[in-house]
Amino acid sequence: MKLHNFNSGPSILPQPVLEAASAAILNFNNTGLSLLEIGHRTNWFQEVLQEAIAHVKILMDLDDNYEVLFLHGGATTQFMQVPMNLLDEKATAAYCDHGVWGNKALKEAALFGNVQVVANSSNRQYRYIDKDFFIPPNAAYLHLTSNNTVEGTQWHQFPETTVPLVADMSSDIFSKPENYKRFSLIYAGAQKNMGAAGVNLVVVRKDMLGKVSRAIPTIMNYQKHIEAASLMNTPPVFAVYVSMLTLRWILAEGGLAEMGNRNKVKANLLYSTIDSLPIFEAPVAVEDRSEMNAVFFMKDTSREEQFLSYCKQEGMIGVKGYRTVGGIRVSMYNALPISSVVSFCELLQYYAQKNG
Amino acid sequence: MKLHNFNSGPSILPQPVLEAASAAILNFNNTGLSLLEIGHRTNWFQEVLQEAIAHVKILMDLDDNYEVLFLHGGATTQFMQVPMNLLDEKATAAYCDHGVWGNKALKEAALFGNVQVVANSSNRQYRYIDKDFFIPPNAAYLHLTSNNTVEGTQWHQFPETTVPLVADMSSDIFSKPENYKRFSLIYAGAQKNMGAAGVNLVVVRKDMLGKVSRAIPTIMNYQKHIEAASLMNTPPVFAVYVSMLTLRWILAEGGLAEMGNRNKVKANLLYSTIDSLPIFEAPVAVEDRSEMNAVFFMKDTSREEQFLSYCKQEGMIGVKGYRTVGGIRVSMYNALPISSVVSFCELLQYYAQKNG
Repeated sequence: MKLHNFNSGPSILPQPVLEAASAAILNFNNTGLSLLEIGHRTNWFQEVLQEAIAHVKILMDLDDNYEVLFLHGGATTQFMQVPMNLLDEKATAAYCDHGVWGNKALKEAALFGNVQVVANSSNRQYRYIDKDFFIPPNAAYLHLTSNNTVEGTQWHQFPETTVPLVADMSSDIFSKPENYKRFSLIYAGAQKNMGAAGVNLVVVRKDMLGKVSRAIPTIMNYQKHIEAASLMNTPPVFAVYVSMLTLRWILAEGGLAEMGNRNKVKANLLYSTIDSLPIFEAPVAVEDRSEMNAVFFMKDTSREEQFLSYCKQEGMIGVKGYRTVGGIRVSMYNALPISSVVSFCELLQYYAQKNG
Repeated sequence: MKLHNFNSGPSILPQPVLEAASAAILNFNNTGLSLLEIGHRTNWFQEVLQEAIAHVKILMDLDDNYEVLFLHGGATTQFMQVPMNLLDEKATAAYCDHGVWGNKALKEAALFGNVQVVANSSNRQYRYIDKDFFIPPNAAYLHLTSNNTVEGTQWHQFPETTVPLVADMSSDIFSKPENYKRFSLIYAGAQKNMGAAGVNLVVVRKDMLGKVSRAIPTIMNYQKHIEAASLMNTPPVFAVYVSMLTLRWILAEGGLAEMGNRNKVKANLLYSTIDSLPIFEAPVAVEDRSEMNAVFFMKDTSREEQFLSYCKQEGMIGVKGYRTVGGIRVSMYNALPISSVVSFCELLQYYAQKNG
């Protein structure tokens, strides 16, 4: 049976990336050695890392004010690492509370300085993006989550502000054209649009650094990683390699414009199908709907379990909603083919017809 | 040409591990999905993680006082994470300064509390293990590096003390039978004897935790990782899988007794060959020689470059000494076959004969 992988992350990757990664584990670039057995200071790995960085710079159109780092861990590591590097003990950072992950981020920041929650959509189960807010002009930064994986919301127009913008872009990075230079710091766990779990991308404007007075542990210090060119310690070699392959694939497919087109086609198709079938409902504010993660429910929630079993039986993987939210969640990252969404929409229609 | 991989880390892995890892990237356990595309909360990954933990418990003969964690990062992350969790601001930790990595560890610890260097071999370029020292009985712990990868020294008998022992075992973990229960905390980056770069093993006695007063960031908090069963955030799935395969391989090959036998054979062969050839010298104290990393030099150092070129030409990979030490370093981790050491010793003898 053909499987369709709608996992929220770790999630589907392009087939050529998987094939190249699999081959490199047996014989990396015809060296006769495995990718897992080579030193991280060899030219072999240097070329991988430099290619990955170059692709990020091209895709984000970055200038020399920015540094690109590949660091151990996932976005949860950055929840701590960002304020440790950017937020002085007596300074204030503004945070948006728009979902489970952003909420975790602001709690970690509060260990390092003052946190002011400037936007909050928890009053309606995080089913919209609160965009009507005031940012204190002296805030060290404004932190937002560009796409809320769990709740299925996404920023479609970022706030205008002179306060430096910091974004967790784990679940929609490289999914569409974006003015990345509006951000002072961007971070993303790789395991959705960018590769395998175990590595973080951090893009930072250099003028954000060196402003806090605390002693930062070396391995957490962005400035030290910049000085060491992402080689302070052994990097997660395999995960960096898979990111490089995935970035190379994005460029080869036509870059962010093409990713954006495909993702829009997939999201429009899925949401319009859900909206057309009265047995389903998508309660997220229409203007804030995520193109990456569609969250919806059955009006008769007692049927959801049976529906999810049916999906599984038909080869639709990973469509169960997040444990605290329930319902159905369909993730449509870059590597998900349009044909998978077509198949899922056919399933929705067929199921609605039989059970409507 | 047959290659012999003497890399210091990332380093050689068992061929069956590489083959299984490569295959899992295309089709994990006949699921039809890649290992990189499956959710970390699925039973599929749970089984991988639980098998890895079970193998560690068997190999270390741990009782229920210990917890086994697989965490993001490498040993350098633990340099910070250990004192963050175990060392209160006004408390004192005892550290051994026996090499480049242990020295880095004690500098990070000093950011969190008082550090007392109780043993120090920097006066002779770290070429021995200073074992004649006093440990303050009220120290929170004594930190040592069981094997100094860069300098080629190794503890062959650990200190007797009532102070809790904490060890960085990155480069000799699972290389021989050991009384692991003498330690209160053990950590190891995986990329030598235990797998691929990008994951840390942390083994901790539960009674060591919860004693510091600082607020620990969630992702750095061992106790929180225990409560979340190593699934607080997306773990480095691939690196955990490779560790599981490598641990499975160690057990299948005969466990630590067999690893110890093989490693002793390899080390004895190499050191006795070096000692028999007057053009080479191994300045590390004989009683502290590492079975994992043999560090030696040519008496006529002007010849080293030519010798290293010759090694490369003959397919001997990774034998150049660490950048701050120079000379020659031959790493002989578990996965290195005895035949590779035999070949290298033949090369040494042949070279000495031609150039003696």
